[in-house]
Amino acid sequence: MAGTIAFASTAVLAIAPKGIDLFSATVFGIITAIGGGTIRDMILEVPVFWTTDQSYIWIAIVTSIVTFYTNALLTKKYINNLLLSVDALGVALFGIQAVNKVWGLDFAIPLGPIGLGIVTAIGGGLIRDVLAGRPTLLMSRELYAIPVMLGCLLYVLILKFLPEYKIIGSTISMLLIFGLRVAAINKKISIPNFFIISAKDA
Amino acid sequence: MAGTIAFASTAVLAIAPKGIDLFSATVFGIITAIGGGTIRDMILEVPVFWTTDQSYIWIAIVTSIVTFYTNALLTKKYINNLLLSVDALGVALFGIQAVNKVWGLDFAIPLGPIGLGIVTAIGGGLIRDVLAGRPTLLMSRELYAIPVMLGCLLYVLILKFLPEYKIIGSTISMLLIFGLRVAAINKKISIPNFFIISAKDA
Amino acid sequence: MAGTIAFASTAVLAIAPKGIDLFSATVFGIITAIGGGTIRDMILEVPVFWTTDQSYIWIAIVTSIVTFYTNALLTKKYINNLLLSVDALGVALFGIQAVNKVWGLDFAIPLGPIGLGIVTAIGGGLIRDVLAGRPTLLMSRELYAIPVMLGCLLYVLILKFLPEYKIIGSTISMLLIFGLRVAAINKKISIPNFFIISAKDA
Repeated sequence: MAGTIAFASTAVLAIAPKGIDLFSATVFGIITAIGGGTIRDMILEVPVFWTTDQSYIWIAIVTSIVTFYTNALLTKKYINNLLLSVDALGVALFGIQAVNKVWGLDFAIPLGPIGLGIVTAIGGGLIRDVLAGRPTLLMSRELYAIPVMLGCLLYVLILKFLPEYKIIGSTISMLLIFGLRVAAINKKISIPNFFIISAKDA
Repeated sequence: MAGTIAFASTAVLAIAPKGIDLFSATVFGIITAIGGGTIRDMILEVPVFWTTDQSYIWIAIVTSIVTFYTNALLTKKYINNLLLSVDALGVALFGIQAVNKVWGLDFAIPLGPIGLGIVTAIGGGLIRDVLAGRPTLLMSRELYAIPVMLGCLLYVLILKFLPEYKIIGSTISMLLIFGLRVAAINKKISIPNFFIISAKDA
Repeated sequence: MAGTIAFASTAVLAIAPKGIDLFSATVFGIITAIGGGTIRDMILEVPVFWTTDQSYIWIAIVTSIVTFYTNALLTKKYINNLLLSVDALGVALFGIQAVNKVWGLDFAIPLGPIGLGIVTAIGGGLIRDVLAGRPTLLMSRELYAIPVMLGCLLYVLILKFLPEYKIIGSTISMLLIFGLRVAAINKKISIPNFFIISAKDA
């Protein structure tokens, strides 16, 4: 639920500077909040998660509307940082929960749980950016997807080799994602140059 | 069928100013005409609608080719307005038919029929714009998705509370979408400022 | 397998000039290599092909990493041309194999096999370009999708009217795609003007 609120809220804030109406803002909020999980469930060929519990969508709708009208307030630096931290929590929750679900279905282990964990955590944001004409996070230098990948990888290793530590392992994996993401937000860490090809002038 | 023709035709007209070849134009025509319904059926996990009746695709192919070669003619003001009206009819038909289908499957009521009605009506156009590098309609001020939402919402309310008026209700809901859309095309109505955040200079 | 290597490699080379980190490059490599087949299987409602054989993804990962670090070398003219030829082979293999699979499932014949053959061959590249903010190949004048369409069409005609020549027919269809594509790369052929609407100044 915290993840849904954070995703819908940051979505509206991300699009608002381009100019937007309330309805489109709400559509972006919903897509960002449920898009990743919807793609995951379509690939898994299981019923999409929001058919059994529509509260995810209701929360996204309410959050989007509230964010739309408090937009000016929420972009203030310290509130925005708080929101980014909640977003980091959301990414961590969405990713690890997805690994759990995919692992439980015994689907394409080990790459399936890791890949669909990443898809669940960042898929909604990718669709949002594409539909809004913004550069996607895959093209940015910010550490966003990599923490998710490391956390999902760690959790898959724990499920495989230390299944008796599943509960504590999921917590540690979420903390890993959350910690790396918060450090990235505060510009404490970034991607080492060795792993980067710089843009060349065409 | 009218919807398929309108969608394929307006797709080709929308892309043509960017320069296009016949094959790509036809691909855009097909995607716009069947894209929304295909996403809907994938989420519903039912066979996509064009497997049982391929005439939708044939019509989209023929319409795209005809539009491609009559492009110069069709962009004339009054013919273009006629086409936009047929497009409005298509949007109304696609949206309300989708609500009917999703409601009949008892899928995630009430948000499922409304959401997938919108997806069916505008999904093909969104994919078209993304693949063509055009701003999507979600970023425009034009009233396009909102009439669909209102019409689908009205029809769901009728199905829920006045199921005995289902036939007349679907007609009224389609007329609502069509009427609002035609009014928007003729610039009689637009989104009130209260529901808009203006673009800020970044 | 050759197709997977070529797709992952050309994906990284295509994105590199925009500046990219190793992780994003690998994501683009995977998406390009398996994206088209994944969409095909989702539309077919069969388990996605990489659940039964994850080696496709492993190969895409290794290829992406190798390409990332040999990027400067691979963009040299003659090596790049070699790679484009392998890519042409990949497109031919992916397209015709997909027609085979869809035909075997008796899915929406004849448009299903042709359409999903095209989707399988170019779908991954389209997603890559959209996520990277590049113009998609549908907007370019290069002969890319048309050879695939002609090859898939030919193969469907052979499967329908000359099923006893299925093996030799699939080879000829692949050679048709490969040959047209290589001719296009070497600028021996392009789309005739009769089939093109030029961009107009807006």
